[in-house]
Amino acid sequence: MKIYPVIMCGGSGTRLWPVSTSRTPKQFVNLVSDTSLFRQTVARLAPGEDGLDLAPPIVISNARYLDLINAQLEADSISPLAILLEPCARNTAAVAAVAADFVGRIDPKGLVLLLPSDHFIGDPGAFRKAIIDAIAVAEAGRIVTFGISPDRPETGFGYIKAGEPIGPSAHAVSSFREKPNHVTALSYLADGNYSWNAGIFMFPANLMCDELETHAPDVLASVKSALDKTKPDGLVHQIDEAAFSEVRSISIDYAVMEHTKNAAVFGPLSCAWSDVGTWPAVGDLQTSSGPVQPVLIDAENCTIHSEQGTLIAALGVEHLVIAVHDGAVLVMSKSRAQDVSLVIDALKARGLTDKF
Amino acid sequence: MKIYPVIMCGGSGTRLWPVSTSRTPKQFVNLVSDTSLFRQTVARLAPGEDGLDLAPPIVISNARYLDLINAQLEADSISPLAILLEPCARNTAAVAAVAADFVGRIDPKGLVLLLPSDHFIGDPGAFRKAIIDAIAVAEAGRIVTFGISPDRPETGFGYIKAGEPIGPSAHAVSSFREKPNHVTALSYLADGNYSWNAGIFMFPANLMCDELETHAPDVLASVKSALDKTKPDGLVHQIDEAAFSEVRSISIDYAVMEHTKNAAVFGPLSCAWSDVGTWPAVGDLQTSSGPVQPVLIDAENCTIHSEQGTLIAALGVEHLVIAVHDGAVLVMSKSRAQDVSLVIDALKARGLTDKF
Repeated sequence: MKIYPVIMCGGSGTRLWPVSTSRTPKQFVNLVSDTSLFRQTVARLAPGEDGLDLAPPIVISNARYLDLINAQLEADSISPLAILLEPCARNTAAVAAVAADFVGRIDPKGLVLLLPSDHFIGDPGAFRKAIIDAIAVAEAGRIVTFGISPDRPETGFGYIKAGEPIGPSAHAVSSFREKPNHVTALSYLADGNYSWNAGIFMFPANLMCDELETHAPDVLASVKSALDKTKPDGLVHQIDEAAFSEVRSISIDYAVMEHTKNAAVFGPLSCAWSDVGTWPAVGDLQTSSGPVQPVLIDAENCTIHSEQGTLIAALGVEHLVIAVHDGAVLVMSKSRAQDVSLVIDALKARGLTDKF
Repeated sequence: MKIYPVIMCGGSGTRLWPVSTSRTPKQFVNLVSDTSLFRQTVARLAPGEDGLDLAPPIVISNARYLDLINAQLEADSISPLAILLEPCARNTAAVAAVAADFVGRIDPKGLVLLLPSDHFIGDPGAFRKAIIDAIAVAEAGRIVTFGISPDRPETGFGYIKAGEPIGPSAHAVSSFREKPNHVTALSYLADGNYSWNAGIFMFPANLMCDELETHAPDVLASVKSALDKTKPDGLVHQIDEAAFSEVRSISIDYAVMEHTKNAAVFGPLSCAWSDVGTWPAVGDLQTSSGPVQPVLIDAENCTIHSEQGTLIAALGVEHLVIAVHDGAVLVMSKSRAQDVSLVIDALKARGLTDKF
């Protein structure tokens, strides 16, 4: 069976403002190395000596990012199989439906590997080995999720509870759990059967269509209708706006995963994964604060991100994020890293749409 | 008697980096209003209906600031009496000697009003009234200092202890005290006879020459020699470098004021004075954080200084200075405001001479 990687890159990553903006979101920025998370995601899926042999990538994103996608693919000489452009955001059930229906039309027996483009994976070899080993699980008729071994009581992620074993490193899913509070997260960590939900899925295209037909038939029907009305321009499919805007906005977890009997969790993976979700998470990964080394005097536990031509000096401060990008400076307590959207809200209220 | 204001503007104000730099120091920057402290100082000395009638200003500075001085004087259509340029910094005794000797040569009976250009005075009328009232004290043969009524146990200023009264609002000086520690500063505040030393002096030119002759004859001789060798170019006197570099570097307080029997203190003045010495002091005076209003969310007691085209957002922080200027960003605890020189030292060590 052929495996079709579908890379989701339509998000806007507001928690990493001012570097991540709606014009150039997180996944397209060189945040933690000299290449973008999107380019790293694509590179991680290339054919290799380890036997992983995926189809060329299918990119699914928002229409406004077409130029960025083309430029970054061309920079690495990548020819995608297709670029599917949503005219508006309709959450992850719609994305999964587009991926499953599109792949099902070109290869009814194909597997879909659906994955975010804005995560970091420090050990791509371990990640690829997990993909290879999980193929048999998906082929056997499962929607495979990938679990990450938790190393702290993180309250910002969803968790997956493993059920009975169904193969090497594979379990049926006992339950999906939304972002827990701190005490619940501690209990998950102690339990040992919970892993973080990395948001990566592998499934037979037709199985996902069947599950959507069962659990969210309206979403599937609207997406099918939208794709029927879409006229491709070469590799680029601008999904029909009128039809797609009718799709109900719901996550794939709520729409399918929490109801299906065919969910599996593979792992937990030890591939040095990070969702790069907040500035402190960037700080944990970055090898440099930017092109100009900052001046740090009695500055403890600070995450600093600078840009060409800007010198940052920090004196007598601790637990801060200091990020400078394109005429904007963010100074924030690390403890407030989840609240950057409050800044975006303030900018919206002032009509400063060029600033976020 | 004619009074000659001599405005000192050769300092470099490193504690207000990155706005104040050696190229454009504090006194020439629009820090707390839409005009510079230097321009405000000059404007404060203009002829007025209150009867204050000073000679045009004599400016004394470092040679590198000639262009800034000319531009700022021209902006206000001010014609100075002279611009005296030191080739190198030799502390305030040298400045007082230059002022006294220069004025003594053009008007042996003249009074000198020697004053810094980097302080803020919120009530210029009260300041001018004090100058007018102090003229008689100086004419009677005193070196008059101006005391500021202390409103807190400041450890960053020198203090003047008043002795016996010698006229309305005028006392002989009992003693000068260097920057005290906190406990000593508290005792000065409780005592009631201490005032802050504003660094403003008024004296007969020839009296200062006599005092220098008595207490620091080498300084006076070196300065006289340097001025003898200086050839003016119009109003501009580039003081002879070889001779002036021989002048001993010592403050006027150490060289003369602590020894003379003719010191007087006038005041204390209530003219809303600030030395604008640190970023928190700027924060106490500023009416705006810059051309782009910052986004402040749970940001308490922060001093923010921005520039055209830069947006600062602060989230969940307190007691910080955030200052952005010309490719440099300072984030500092207010409690470390006296230590900005440590940043300059680090930049020097890296050879980043264009940054300070």
